[in-house]
Amino acid sequence: MKDQEQNRLSSSKPEQEEELTPEEIVDRVKEALAKHDQSALRYEFFKNHPYDQAKIYIKLSDEERRLLYQYISAKELADVYDVLDEDEQEDIIDYLEAMDDQYAANMLGEMYRDNAADILKKFSPNKIVHYMRLIPIEQAEKIKTLMDYEDETAGAIMTTEFVQIKANQTIKSAMTLVRAKAENAETIYYLYVVDDDSRLVGVLTLRDLITSDANRLVSEAMSPRVVTVSVDDNQQDVARTIQDYDFLAIPVIEATGELLGIITVDDILDVMDEEAVADYSGLAGVSVDEPYQTPVKSAQSRLPWLITLLFLGMGTSTLIGHFEDMISEVATLSLFITLITGTSGNAGTQSLAVAVRKIANPDNEESTFLQLIFRELFTGLICGLITGGTIFLIITLWQKNMILGLVVGVAMLCAITVANLAGSIIPLLMDRLGFDPAVASGPFITTLSDLTSVLIYFSIASQFLLYLS
Amino acid sequence: MKDQEQNRLSSSKPEQEEELTPEEIVDRVKEALAKHDQSALRYEFFKNHPYDQAKIYIKLSDEERRLLYQYISAKELADVYDVLDEDEQEDIIDYLEAMDDQYAANMLGEMYRDNAADILKKFSPNKIVHYMRLIPIEQAEKIKTLMDYEDETAGAIMTTEFVQIKANQTIKSAMTLVRAKAENAETIYYLYVVDDDSRLVGVLTLRDLITSDANRLVSEAMSPRVVTVSVDDNQQDVARTIQDYDFLAIPVIEATGELLGIITVDDILDVMDEEAVADYSGLAGVSVDEPYQTPVKSAQSRLPWLITLLFLGMGTSTLIGHFEDMISEVATLSLFITLITGTSGNAGTQSLAVAVRKIANPDNEESTFLQLIFRELFTGLICGLITGGTIFLIITLWQKNMILGLVVGVAMLCAITVANLAGSIIPLLMDRLGFDPAVASGPFITTLSDLTSVLIYFSIASQFLLYLS
Repeated sequence: MKDQEQNRLSSSKPEQEEELTPEEIVDRVKEALAKHDQSALRYEFFKNHPYDQAKIYIKLSDEERRLLYQYISAKELADVYDVLDEDEQEDIIDYLEAMDDQYAANMLGEMYRDNAADILKKFSPNKIVHYMRLIPIEQAEKIKTLMDYEDETAGAIMTTEFVQIKANQTIKSAMTLVRAKAENAETIYYLYVVDDDSRLVGVLTLRDLITSDANRLVSEAMSPRVVTVSVDDNQQDVARTIQDYDFLAIPVIEATGELLGIITVDDILDVMDEEAVADYSGLAGVSVDEPYQTPVKSAQSRLPWLITLLFLGMGTSTLIGHFEDMISEVATLSLFITLITGTSGNAGTQSLAVAVRKIANPDNEESTFLQLIFRELFTGLICGLITGGTIFLIITLWQKNMILGLVVGVAMLCAITVANLAGSIIPLLMDRLGFDPAVASGPFITTLSDLTSVLIYFSIASQFLLYLS
Repeated sequence: MKDQEQNRLSSSKPEQEEELTPEEIVDRVKEALAKHDQSALRYEFFKNHPYDQAKIYIKLSDEERRLLYQYISAKELADVYDVLDEDEQEDIIDYLEAMDDQYAANMLGEMYRDNAADILKKFSPNKIVHYMRLIPIEQAEKIKTLMDYEDETAGAIMTTEFVQIKANQTIKSAMTLVRAKAENAETIYYLYVVDDDSRLVGVLTLRDLITSDANRLVSEAMSPRVVTVSVDDNQQDVARTIQDYDFLAIPVIEATGELLGIITVDDILDVMDEEAVADYSGLAGVSVDEPYQTPVKSAQSRLPWLITLLFLGMGTSTLIGHFEDMISEVATLSLFITLITGTSGNAGTQSLAVAVRKIANPDNEESTFLQLIFRELFTGLICGLITGGTIFLIITLWQKNMILGLVVGVAMLCAITVANLAGSIIPLLMDRLGFDPAVASGPFITTLSDLTSVLIYFSIASQFLLYLS
């Protein structure tokens, strides 16, 4: 978590200055680089917030970046890399490979360990070993430990740069420690109190610290009940806990109670974004992760689902083929195919969305699998009855054919109920089997429901064929 | 933003205790209430974090809650209400109306002003005036100001409880001020430096403060460049800024530069959740906001879209009706209706999801409206060509009818292209016209695309009728 303090001016030029557009600032940096003017470059670059420095950094050409590395230290660049957007991390491999290896390793060593671990994971095993050898051994080992945690767990998003204090030290001595650690810890706003076996026994906020009597003991001022997460908890559960309790950070502990690291709220913002995108992409059957792509790349990411579902859709066509004679005889039946498949597809999508959300955010009143299914069954029946009843009335009045109205209405009722059930059972099953339920895409549910809807429709119609023609 | 400090024990019972389940804790609180044992009640209740206190609070019966109000102060209850989940805010009106009005008003007066404003907004104008009269006038006026900002803007989510200091005071005197304000400010981790006209001139973190020399001036230690948001900025833009810069809070200023309030990261977590749910609900055509409902309530929230789309779907049925004779003649045509509508519906949903996400997260390289449309047109053409080509081959081989394959393939190409265009043009247009593009639901796009797909399919088929029968 970066504080605004890093924004301190690194030069003594006058502070009063006109407002520049982002483009003008980039131009000034480029200009300073072209002139090989280190002082101007440092002034124009460091007067921005690290996030804005990162935005400038990615706008530079390869050649300009190479020049930049001569004028700013690996430690300074580490601050920029600590806030580089996930979106831009695609290019990070190229950026690092264009650096001098020792410079890159120094930068990785100066970054927050969790961020360094995230970047290193993008490289091949050989390259990782190569960088690790160039990073100071103690730091390299700590980064390595973080890299070993499974993706999307608390361990994978935690950092080990936190401030830990002892219960029997005084507030005053804790304050001295905090001042000393202020530069390197990711947050100094929560101080974690551990015993001699590194087990977490309490927490003290910086707010507590500065308002407590300097001679009191930490044990008297700390909160002994600490909300924690386990190192292999899912990142989504960690996000929910931080959101519920309004924490700025949460400690991560091992089964033994040993304090391993902390997760700060800035990483949780990224997790929430990531999870929202995953759910949304799942529902749409397309990855919406990379907004700006060429049409060819966009088509590449969309076609796998489209073609897979085309083959599933062929099943529906084959099924209709079995009823071809019936359709020749009563062509009116074909009018309502899309109406039934479309409406039950819509119902299935609704049910899917609700189920995926339910799975992601289980309420306190945990329901059983069967309860969820029954609830969705009844919801489907109610929606089906009302929608089926509506279409029965419309067709009876419009086509003056009550039997046709009844066939379409009952088919609609059955198809919607089945689609609702499929929309909830499929993600629930996937969740029980350990898959991400968000992968059950909306398009998959609608295409599947096309098949069952057509089957239901023509099966019912064939029973009433005599009255329809 | 609550710190963990509020968790301090309010009783002196021994700290070492077995782990209780949430249910057991609720039972103990209920038991203490039943016995009218204030000391046990306060011990069992306040040993929990405020968020857990809130969870206990909502599990109590109306009668138990009334008893609780006798044993805990309005100020203590305010801490609970400050962390009550948005989800549970449905019942808040009932809770407050069951309280003594003066007690309720005292509680509102003790809450963080932004949270008090959010709760008061749920009441009728008369009731608001009634409560406001009972809240100390100065506090009531400040809450009133917050209530007047338009929903979903920075003004509506900001708080006015922050610490402001002067540039010409010493670090030491600022520290004294922070200690004094520590109890009431929402965050003391960022201190905002203002001039005599309340204009924001800098920011100092508590980290800066505790590591700076006590005799220096604030102006020497502060960052003079502050990232701010404007009071009428959309909450989604505020969330993005906080996420990008990894801030714990961001100042909200008026056009004049006057500092009005701050937005803390805990509120941003809620905003991100809210926006993700809105996007997701939009795509599914159902509100997924209240996960646990009775089937009747679920059906009520789903039926409006289902019935609306049923009527739109009737348009497609009517359209097919115009081609009824053609279908009697060549019943094979009916086999591919759902395949074409289904596939183009899927393509339209993909395109919609990408467009909504693009609008919500505009990239640095801002594209023009026309560029976006053209990009989607080409993506649609590529997807259409490949999908159309695939189905042409399948039908030619399966039905041994190349003309039929050509009709279906070309219809598929056209239908997918149109669906892709609709999926991006509709949300883009809605955005330009000032509507929330996420309201353009997936089911609406697929149902609309059913209509155009059928029109395209039968129009093409009618041109080749001679070769099909």
